[in-house]
Amino acid sequence: MNNRLILRALGIMLCCLAVAMLPSLAFSIVDASRDTLAFLLSIIVTAVAGFALILIKPGTMQVGYKEGFLVATSGWLLLSTFGALPFYLSGILTHPVDAFFESASGFTTTGASLIANIEGLSRGILFWRSLIHWLGGMGIIVLTLALMPSINVAGFRMFKAEVPGPTKSKVLPKVAQTARELYKVYLLFSLGEFILLKVAGMSWFDAMIHTLGTMGTGGSSSKNASIGYFDSLSIELIIIFFMILCGINFSLHYSVMKGNRLAYFKDPETKVYLGIIAVAVMLVSINLVNDLDYGIDQAARLALFQVASVITSTGFTTTDFYQWPDFSRFLLVVLMFVGACSGSTGAGIKVIRLLIVLRALSNQMSRLIHPQAVIPVRLGNSVIPQEVVQTVQNFFALFIVCIGIAVTALLALGIDLSTAFMAVITTISCLGTVSPATMFADMPQVAKLILTFCMFIGRLELFTILVVLNLKFWR
Amino acid sequence: MNNRLILRALGIMLCCLAVAMLPSLAFSIVDASRDTLAFLLSIIVTAVAGFALILIKPGTMQVGYKEGFLVATSGWLLLSTFGALPFYLSGILTHPVDAFFESASGFTTTGASLIANIEGLSRGILFWRSLIHWLGGMGIIVLTLALMPSINVAGFRMFKAEVPGPTKSKVLPKVAQTARELYKVYLLFSLGEFILLKVAGMSWFDAMIHTLGTMGTGGSSSKNASIGYFDSLSIELIIIFFMILCGINFSLHYSVMKGNRLAYFKDPETKVYLGIIAVAVMLVSINLVNDLDYGIDQAARLALFQVASVITSTGFTTTDFYQWPDFSRFLLVVLMFVGACSGSTGAGIKVIRLLIVLRALSNQMSRLIHPQAVIPVRLGNSVIPQEVVQTVQNFFALFIVCIGIAVTALLALGIDLSTAFMAVITTISCLGTVSPATMFADMPQVAKLILTFCMFIGRLELFTILVVLNLKFWR
Ligand SMILES: [K+]
Ligand SMILES: [K+]
Repeated sequence: MNNRLILRALGIMLCCLAVAMLPSLAFSIVDASRDTLAFLLSIIVTAVAGFALILIKPGTMQVGYKEGFLVATSGWLLLSTFGALPFYLSGILTHPVDAFFESASGFTTTGASLIANIEGLSRGILFWRSLIHWLGGMGIIVLTLALMPSINVAGFRMFKAEVPGPTKSKVLPKVAQTARELYKVYLLFSLGEFILLKVAGMSWFDAMIHTLGTMGTGGSSSKNASIGYFDSLSIELIIIFFMILCGINFSLHYSVMKGNRLAYFKDPETKVYLGIIAVAVMLVSINLVNDLDYGIDQAARLALFQVASVITSTGFTTTDFYQWPDFSRFLLVVLMFVGACSGSTGAGIKVIRLLIVLRALSNQMSRLIHPQAVIPVRLGNSVIPQEVVQTVQNFFALFIVCIGIAVTALLALGIDLSTAFMAVITTISCLGTVSPATMFADMPQVAKLILTFCMFIGRLELFTILVVLNLKFWR
Repeated sequence: MNNRLILRALGIMLCCLAVAMLPSLAFSIVDASRDTLAFLLSIIVTAVAGFALILIKPGTMQVGYKEGFLVATSGWLLLSTFGALPFYLSGILTHPVDAFFESASGFTTTGASLIANIEGLSRGILFWRSLIHWLGGMGIIVLTLALMPSINVAGFRMFKAEVPGPTKSKVLPKVAQTARELYKVYLLFSLGEFILLKVAGMSWFDAMIHTLGTMGTGGSSSKNASIGYFDSLSIELIIIFFMILCGINFSLHYSVMKGNRLAYFKDPETKVYLGIIAVAVMLVSINLVNDLDYGIDQAARLALFQVASVITSTGFTTTDFYQWPDFSRFLLVVLMFVGACSGSTGAGIKVIRLLIVLRALSNQMSRLIHPQAVIPVRLGNSVIPQEVVQTVQNFFALFIVCIGIAVTALLALGIDLSTAFMAVITTISCLGTVSPATMFADMPQVAKLILTFCMFIGRLELFTILVVLNLKFWR
């Protein structure tokens, strides 16, 4: 294990984090807010820790998957810990576990909050809550690139030449180069949404907050009523558009920008993803019209926003969908599991994994009918290697096993079944939105730690963390 | 497809069914019950249909998996249809769908009932409800033997020599011979439980009913309060013992009887199955003591009975466990998924499948740490072939997909979420026991048909039916 390089990488992350706190400090100073000292202290502590680690000289630049898994796991953990300082030092959350929960919920782009009245927060804190979503989104893009050839099916397309896995010497330069390209897309989208939201009537601060919340699919708002506060069709449509966009593989976006304009429509995952959204919006609309006597336009508007928000695991809302009829609620729960596309900033199981699981299933049927036939699993024009199919099936099983264990643990803590279930799936799918909004705040600290763990494993695609927790990893 | 042989086999089944109705007719005559005519008519109709089919001359005795899948699917369907006649003709259930639901619930050993007051039924009908459980259990044993090499992991052990699948000419004699041996075990257990229950104080009729209900893991009782009615520790212990026994692979029982006394303890599936029961009983007991202030002896007695009943998908009860705290209820729901051992008469996913899914998962972890290592999935001393692992993973995914689709369908019919969920998992796991007992009776007919379908696919291990429903099957 290349420990020196790992520690140095963590040091660089912390220094970046300290820099990222500067805008919040600026807001606090401008507003003469009492959070100024909290941000100042947070920056000093984070920067000092960062510089201390950066001083470590890396012996070699060699890294492999093991280093990658460890950097990702400890990176998210460390950033969440230092990112919690502003929440704790400002006194907004008085228990360290609460501050850690709030911060982890940000970096994992979950957006579950322990703060009941968001509108009472200072601009510095509000900006911090949203910025860490945006940073989390950037982290996910590079994670997908670097580690996913081994555990994510998006990777197998991007790194086709290197399957079954890039060699040690090739990983770093290739990842860095591709990450740079994708970050351009990410920045371009951010700029685009920001301008459009401003034009549609948001204040420049709100436009910024909601742009940061959309891009990483984090979903923290500056308003208690989320997007419902603005009551504006144009704002909703802009956010819907960018939520759906951020749920698509960023390498496809890059491909489209490079002139391959039909890339979206040639990609089987994107087609199914858009298809699922269309069908879900239709079913929910019909259900709302029938059961709640909504007009079809009102129903469709509400359905489209909530479906896009849930499938991309963003978590912005324009209504409390927990009050919807059971049929619609269940569909939304299914969408929480489904998630967006691989290589996007969305979380959940991901459309491509479900596609592969279902294709493998239908292959099984054919094999039972024609036992001699060996049929490879296909997706579009490409054959999915057997190892990838297995990894996906294991991911699917692991997702369900993790939910089962977490729910059992919460029940053992005395939390009731429906609360436990919703808490676990909204955190493991990194959706974050729950009803009532104070649900997490009422839980015991141990439950919050369990749910923080759910956010981490959900965001880091389960294997990244669980591999590191495996004793064999350390031998 | 060997259509003639299939039709003839179905004819033989119907003739056996007509014979199986004779004891109920006898009870009706002895009791001078008004159900006499119903049984007489049912026997005549069933026998005539059976003889008509039996007259078909089979061209050849060649059968393969396709014929096997078709016989199993159409056999269970046909028996459930003709087995519904007594319920319908006696006027106990006035709608054909209701009678079909009750009968299918019997043959699939589910035991979900539309009849609220069981104690008001005649002995003929009571006997019929329990006998079809017993026959269903016999059917499952032969199904496991005949088809499972292709879809059940129990089969791969029994038919090791013939993997990846027995050749056409070998299947029939081998299955018939092994089935005869296993039926001896089944009869012996039945006799044993019957005598013990009689000795423990049950009337000979009740002893018979509850023996028939235990062996096939059907769980229909002659009392509204199920086993709780008898309020007898010895009766409970006898039934617990036989429920757990019927949840173990019957080929292991045979092996033990042949003198291999340690067979149970050498079998990894049986060890884990007994381990799960022990842990679940402990956890539920603690929960009952803590939350309901039960004494430890009372808690353990209730926990042991309910856990054994649920994991084996029998469904006898000594208390309404739906009133238990959420933690215990959730554990029982998990046990519904787990199910008993492969090759037993219990339903559910089966312990061995979960073991294989978990082993494949832990292998995945090792592969992520040491990408070069190719580690086969092991269980005890044997290596599980990769095709079996895949089949199991597909089974697991299919189980969850089916539950999702069925729940969505029930919700679309306006049934509330928790009712829909419990109805689907108690039918697909062939447990049958729900609370309130009238839950199924209040549902629309379409919902009952959906749930009947769940019972069939759950009992016939999903693939058996779904393969036949695949269009490619018929080409
Ligand atoms: K989110
Ligand atoms: K049952």
